Amino acid sequence: MRSISFILSLIFCLSFVQAQAQQLADYIPLTPKEHAKIEQLLSEMTLDEKTHQLASFYPNANKRLNIPHMQAGECLHGVVAAGATSFPQAIALASAWDMNLVERVSTVIAAEARALGIQHVYTPMLGVVRDARWGRFEEAYSEDPFLVSRTGVAFINGLQGKGKERYNTNHVLATAKHFVADGEPVLGANGAAVEISLRSLHEIFLAPFRAAVEEARVGSIMPAHHSLNGVPCHINSDVLNDILRDEYHFSGLVVSDNNDIRWVQDRLKATGSRVETIRKALEAGVHTELAFKQTWGPNRMYGPPLAEAVKNGQIPVKLLDDAVRKVLEFKFALHLENEENPMGREMARLKTETKNADVEADVFFSQIDGSLSYPRKHYKKVLNDPSHDQLALEAARKSLILLKNAGQLLPLRKDQYKTIAVIGPNADTIRLGTYSTQQPKHFISVRQGIENAVAGQAKIVYAKGTSIQHPDDREIAEAVSLAKQSDICILVLGDDDKTVMENVDRDDIALPGAQDQLMKAIAATGKPVVLVLLHGRPPGIQWAKEHIPAILDGWFAGQDTGTAIAEAIFGDLNPSGKLTVTYPRNVCQVPAYYNSLAPGRPREIWGSSFEPSYPFGFGLSYTSFAYTDFHLSKSSMTTADTIYAEVTIKNTGKMKGDEIVQLYVRDEISSLARPLKELKGFQRISLQPGESRQVQIPVSRKSLEFWKDGQWITEPGEFTVMVGPNSTDLTNVKLNLTN
Amino acid sequence: MRSISFILSLIFCLSFVQAQAQQLADYIPLTPKEHAKIEQLLSEMTLDEKTHQLASFYPNANKRLNIPHMQAGECLHGVVAAGATSFPQAIALASAWDMNLVERVSTVIAAEARALGIQHVYTPMLGVVRDARWGRFEEAYSEDPFLVSRTGVAFINGLQGKGKERYNTNHVLATAKHFVADGEPVLGANGAAVEISLRSLHEIFLAPFRAAVEEARVGSIMPAHHSLNGVPCHINSDVLNDILRDEYHFSGLVVSDNNDIRWVQDRLKATGSRVETIRKALEAGVHTELAFKQTWGPNRMYGPPLAEAVKNGQIPVKLLDDAVRKVLEFKFALHLENEENPMGREMARLKTETKNADVEADVFFSQIDGSLSYPRKHYKKVLNDPSHDQLALEAARKSLILLKNAGQLLPLRKDQYKTIAVIGPNADTIRLGTYSTQQPKHFISVRQGIENAVAGQAKIVYAKGTSIQHPDDREIAEAVSLAKQSDICILVLGDDDKTVMENVDRDDIALPGAQDQLMKAIAATGKPVVLVLLHGRPPGIQWAKEHIPAILDGWFAGQDTGTAIAEAIFGDLNPSGKLTVTYPRNVCQVPAYYNSLAPGRPREIWGSSFEPSYPFGFGLSYTSFAYTDFHLSKSSMTTADTIYAEVTIKNTGKMKGDEIVQLYVRDEISSLARPLKELKGFQRISLQPGESRQVQIPVSRKSLEFWKDGQWITEPGEFTVMVGPNSTDLTNVKLNLTN
Repeated sequence: MRSISFILSLIFCLSFVQAQAQQLADYIPLTPKEHAKIEQLLSEMTLDEKTHQLASFYPNANKRLNIPHMQAGECLHGVVAAGATSFPQAIALASAWDMNLVERVSTVIAAEARALGIQHVYTPMLGVVRDARWGRFEEAYSEDPFLVSRTGVAFINGLQGKGKERYNTNHVLATAKHFVADGEPVLGANGAAVEISLRSLHEIFLAPFRAAVEEARVGSIMPAHHSLNGVPCHINSDVLNDILRDEYHFSGLVVSDNNDIRWVQDRLKATGSRVETIRKALEAGVHTELAFKQTWGPNRMYGPPLAEAVKNGQIPVKLLDDAVRKVLEFKFALHLENEENPMGREMARLKTETKNADVEADVFFSQIDGSLSYPRKHYKKVLNDPSHDQLALEAARKSLILLKNAGQLLPLRKDQYKTIAVIGPNADTIRLGTYSTQQPKHFISVRQGIENAVAGQAKIVYAKGTSIQHPDDREIAEAVSLAKQSDICILVLGDDDKTVMENVDRDDIALPGAQDQLMKAIAATGKPVVLVLLHGRPPGIQWAKEHIPAILDGWFAGQDTGTAIAEAIFGDLNPSGKLTVTYPRNVCQVPAYYNSLAPGRPREIWGSSFEPSYPFGFGLSYTSFAYTDFHLSKSSMTTADTIYAEVTIKNTGKMKGDEIVQLYVRDEISSLARPLKELKGFQRISLQPGESRQVQIPVSRKSLEFWKDGQWITEPGEFTVMVGPNSTDLTNVKLNLTN
Repeated sequence: MRSISFILSLIFCLSFVQAQAQQLADYIPLTPKEHAKIEQLLSEMTLDEKTHQLASFYPNANKRLNIPHMQAGECLHGVVAAGATSFPQAIALASAWDMNLVERVSTVIAAEARALGIQHVYTPMLGVVRDARWGRFEEAYSEDPFLVSRTGVAFINGLQGKGKERYNTNHVLATAKHFVADGEPVLGANGAAVEISLRSLHEIFLAPFRAAVEEARVGSIMPAHHSLNGVPCHINSDVLNDILRDEYHFSGLVVSDNNDIRWVQDRLKATGSRVETIRKALEAGVHTELAFKQTWGPNRMYGPPLAEAVKNGQIPVKLLDDAVRKVLEFKFALHLENEENPMGREMARLKTETKNADVEADVFFSQIDGSLSYPRKHYKKVLNDPSHDQLALEAARKSLILLKNAGQLLPLRKDQYKTIAVIGPNADTIRLGTYSTQQPKHFISVRQGIENAVAGQAKIVYAKGTSIQHPDDREIAEAVSLAKQSDICILVLGDDDKTVMENVDRDDIALPGAQDQLMKAIAATGKPVVLVLLHGRPPGIQWAKEHIPAILDGWFAGQDTGTAIAEAIFGDLNPSGKLTVTYPRNVCQVPAYYNSLAPGRPREIWGSSFEPSYPFGFGLSYTSFAYTDFHLSKSSMTTADTIYAEVTIKNTGKMKGDEIVQLYVRDEISSLARPLKELKGFQRISLQPGESRQVQIPVSRKSLEFWKDGQWITEPGEFTVMVGPNSTDLTNVKLNLTN
C-alpha cells in the first residue's frame, strides 16, 4: 500500500514538475541551454549585481557578466519618441472594432520600438473604464470587458508577435496594466482606493487580464496604484499569486508602477518598514521596480535597501533570485545580446556627458525625444516606412464615429459652400492625446485637412474661438463675426493635454473652459454647424445633440486626424466607428455603462433622464443597413456546443459602407443578478450599395458563463440573444441552454 | 470514553438549547404560558388563517381564534397621520448629535402611534448615505456608521421602550430598514443593484444594524429592494441568516418591503416560479409580506400562492409555521389583546362601507389621514399633549446648523432693519419632508416665524421669487424689485416634496429649478442676504458659500421650523447643530464622505477642488469655543482597557452656546487600508460665556477594531486620536495599542 501511494505521489510530483516546465516553456520561449546559462549567471552574480537587474527603465546591463540592458518605454498609441508614427489614441483605435487592424497597428509599433532600442513596453492598458472623471480614460479601450479583452489580445499579439515570431527582433515584451481595476477608483480620482464586489472584480475588471494571459500569453503585468479591497495592488498576493499565477497560469514578469513599491509604505501605510515593504512586494511576485527620479539610494526599494536586507538575512535570497531569474529569462527570450540599442547607448552617452551615474529617466526621455541626438541606423528607415503612415491613416479613417447627421447635412460637396469657417481651440493645433511624443513625424490638423481637401474649391477662414485654459470673451466675439461672414462652420472642440491626463481628473465632463459658450454663440448665428470632437473622455454633449445638426467624433485620431476628418466631412470616407463607451448626459450619471444589473425598482429621476446622450456601440453611417432573418443555427444548446447567431445585413443606401454588427446575450433567470445585456460577439463588414451578406457570430459556453463563488459557471435555462447596430436597437431570439 | 463524550455532547446540547431560549426571551419578552398559547394557536389554525397572519399592514386579525390585528404604520419623524406631532426630518434630528433628545422624540412618537392604534412601525431607516443623488437621503441619519448607530439605537430605544417598558402599551415594534446598503445603489437610483466590498458591507453598512440588534434588540428588520452583490436582499440568506441571525443573534421579525418578494422574481429575475420565490424568501427568514395595492390574490405571495404551495407539498409547513410563530410572538409581546385600535376599527368600518374585503392600503391611509373620521378616545389627548409640541420645538432648535456668518451678520436685532424681505419658494409653505402627514397639527413657516418674532418692530414683505416646479422669470423680477425696496433679505430656498422623495432620484444637487438664478439676482441687489435652506439632500451651495454672507441650514425642521429659524436669526437661539454628512461642491463629487481610505496618488483635479463645500461635522455658533489641554488618560492601552480622551472646552465668546465635541481615530499602519479618520465618539455640551469644562470621551477596543476576513480585529501599534469641532479642524495625540 505504502509503496504504491509513494509511487503515485512520485508520478504526480513528476508530472506536476513537467507540466510546470511545459507551461513555462509555453509562456517564455527558452531552450534548456538558455535556462542553464541563466542559472550559471545567477550563481556568479553579486548581491549588488542582482539588484541592478531589477531596475526597470534604469540602466540594468552588466558589463562584467555581459548581461545586456533591457530598455523599457511607452507606446500607448505609437512609441513615445520623436519621429515615431502616431496612431489614434487607444480608445479611438478600439472604436474601429477591427481586431485585424489593431494587431497590424501594434505590430508596427513593436517594430518601431525595437528599432529605437526599446524591448519592453508598458503597454497596453486593459482597464475597463466606466467613470469619465478619471484622467486616464482615453488610455483604455472600452467600458465592456469583452471588447477590452478582444482589443487587448490583438494589441498584445501585435506587440509580442505570435508563434515563432514571439519576442523576435521585430517584437517586444508587452505589459498589461494596471492590475487590477485601475479605472474604478472612488470619485474617479487616480490611485484612490478601489472597493468592489468579487463579481465585478472577476467579470468586469479581471476578465481582460485573463484573456491577455490565456490567449495572448502577455509577458508582463504592471500592478495598479491603489489598494484593492484594502490591500495595495503591489503587495496583493490574492490577485497576483492566487488569481493571476495559480488560476490563469501567468508565468511572466511583474513590473511595479512608478514608485509604487515605496508608496505601499509611504502613502498607503500598509507596511511599517522598508524591509517589510520589499519582502511583501517580492512575495507577491513583483519582480522589478520602476522608480523614476529615484537615484541608486534608499528610495530605490529594490536597490540598496533590498541588497542590505538580503545581506542581513531579513529577506531570503531566494526571493531576490526568483525575481532576477525572471528578468534574465526575458533578456534571453528577447535576444538582447546582439541588440542595436540606440536608446541604451544614448543613456550611456548622457551618463558620461553629465558625469551623473544616475541620469534621471525624465531627463533622459526628454533628451531623446527632444534632440534626436542618438545614433541612427536602420531605425530611421523603420520609422519612415511609408506603410506605417498609411496604416495610421487607415486607423484614423476606421475609428471616426458619426454621432449625428440631421437632414443629411454631411457629407458636404467641396464646392457647396463658398466660405467655410473652421473654428475652435482644437482646429489648428496638435492634439494627439496623452502618452504622445512632443515631436510627431507629422500632424495634419482639421484646418489643414480641410484646406488640403477643398484645395481652392472654397474659401477657408479660421478662428480659434476660445482658449481652453484661459478663455477670453473677445475670442468668441471674433469667431461669431467670422461665422456670420461664412456659409458653414466646422467647429472643432474637445480636450487639450491639460484637461485630460494621468493624475489629473475632473468632476465634470462639460467641454472644458468656455467651449459650450462658443458652441452656443456659433449655433445662434443660424449657420449650419458641423461639430468635430477631439477629446479624451466622454464629452457632455447633450445640448449639442439637441441643437447641432452634425457631430463627428474623432477622440484623438493620430497624426492624420485632419486628413481623415476632412475625408469624412466631404464624403471621401464613410464613417464607420462605433462608441466603445456610453456617453452620459452629464458627469452626474457616472459610472455609465450599458451592462447594468436589473434594478429592484423602476427608475425615476427629477428634471432629467437616465437615458445617456449616446449608448454603447452607437455610430451612424452615410448609408443605411437593414438587419433581417436573425436566427440561431440551433435554438437549444449544451455547454459543449458552439452555435451561431446568423443575421443578414444589407446595405440599403447609396454609398459603400462598413457596419459593425453586435451580438448581446441575457441570462433570463439566474441565481445571481446578471447584466440586462452583455456584448459577446461582433463583426465588422464592408458592403457595397445593395449588397447583402449573412454574418455568423458564434455563441458558446463562454458567452453564457458567469462568475459565482470562485468559479465560472453556466446555469441551464432560457437566454435571450440579441443582434443590432448598437446596444439599444436590438432584435431578440430565445436560446435554451440544457445540461 | 464514549459515555463521557456522549455526556459532554448532551451537556453542550442542553446548554445550547437553554442559551437559545434565553436569547429569545431576552429578545422578545414572553412568558412560558404565552409560548404555550402560541403553539396551541398554531395547532388550531387552518392554512388560510396562517397565511393571513403574514400580511403586514393588511387586516391580519382572526375572529375565530381571537387573534388581534397588528397595525403597521410609518413614523419616520412623527406618525404619518393627521394631527400627529411632526418632528424634524430624520437627518435634521441627527444633526443635533443629542442622543437623549433622539430617544425622547421617538418615545413621544411611539406613544402617539400606539394611541392611534399602530403597534408596528416601519421605522427607523439605518441606511448610511453617501450619494446625494438618492431620493431617500433625508430619511437617513448620516454618512458615518458610528453616528447612524448611536442615533439608531437611541431612536429604537425610544420606540420600543427599554427594560420592563419594552413593548408596553406606550411603545411599538420598531423596524430597522433597509437591510442592507440601501443608500448605495449604483447612480443613486433607488433599488438599483448594489455591488460593494465585504469591508464596506460590514464596517459601513451593516454596522448600524449590528448596533440596533446587539444594543437595542430591534424587534423587526426590513430588507432592501436591491440585489446585494448579485443576490436580492429578500432571499439573501447570507446576510439575513448567516450575519443577522447567526452572527448578531437577531431573533425578531423580518417584514418585506412593498411588493419586494414578488419582485425578486418579476424584476430581479432571480427565481423562476412563484413557489421558488416564496420558498427562498421564507428560507431566508422573511416572515411577513408588505404588499400595498395587492388584494388577496395571486400577487400576494404569502397569501393564496403560499397556502396552495404548502397544500401541494411544495413548501414545508414548518417554514410557514416559523413565520406565523414570529408574528404571534410579537402580538403577545405587544399586548394587543386589549388594544384600543382606532386604525384597525377604521379599516373594519371602511371594509363594511365599501363592501370591499380588500380595502387597499393607500386608500385606507388617505382616508385615515384625510378625514380624521376614526373613533377618538384617549389618543386625542396624547396627540395634543403640549409637551409634544415643546419637544418638537426643542428638536428644531437643536438641529439648526449655522454654515456661514461673515462679519457677524447674524444675529439681527429685531429693530435693526426697517423693512425685511422674506423671499423664496420655501418661505411661506409647508415643508416637512417626506413621510409626513398632509395635515400636520400646525406648521410655522419661516415667513410666519419672522412675523411672529419681530411683531411690529420691522416691516415684513414677502415674495415667492420662483416656483420650484414651473419657474417664471417674472417672479424673479418681482422679488428683485421687492428686495431693492427692503433693507435685508431672508432668502428661503431648498427642496419641495417632488424634488426629493422615495423613488425619485436626481443627477444634480444644484438648488432645483431657477433658485440659483433667484439667489444670484437677489445677491446682485447689494442688500445683505441671509440664506435659509430647507431641503432633503446635500445642496450644491458652493456659490452661496463664496457670495452670501450668512447661511442657516434647517434641513426640514418639523412643525416649528419658522419659530426656530426666526429665533436663530434674531439671536433668541444660538445655533448648535452640525452636519452629519459632507456637503460636496457638486453632484460630480459623490460619493462624498470624510472617512475615505488612503489614496495611492496625490489628488489633482482640473478646474475644481476635491475639498467639499462644508465638511462632515461642521457647524458654527454665535459664540466661540477654545479646545485646550487635549490628552489621553493613558498613552498606551491594551484591548481590555478603556481609556479616555480628555479635552477642555471653553466658551470664549459672549453668548451661551452648545458645542458638539468630536473624537476621531486613525490606525497609522494596518494590514488593510483604513480610513484616514473615523468618528468614534462625541459629546454635546452647554457652556455659559467664560465657562470651561473638561470633556471625557472613552476610547476602547471597539473604537480601534476593524473587519478583516470575517472577524472584527485590532492590530497592535500606533494610532492617532483627534478631537475638534468638526472632521477637519482637529488636534492630534498618539496612542499605542499593545497586546
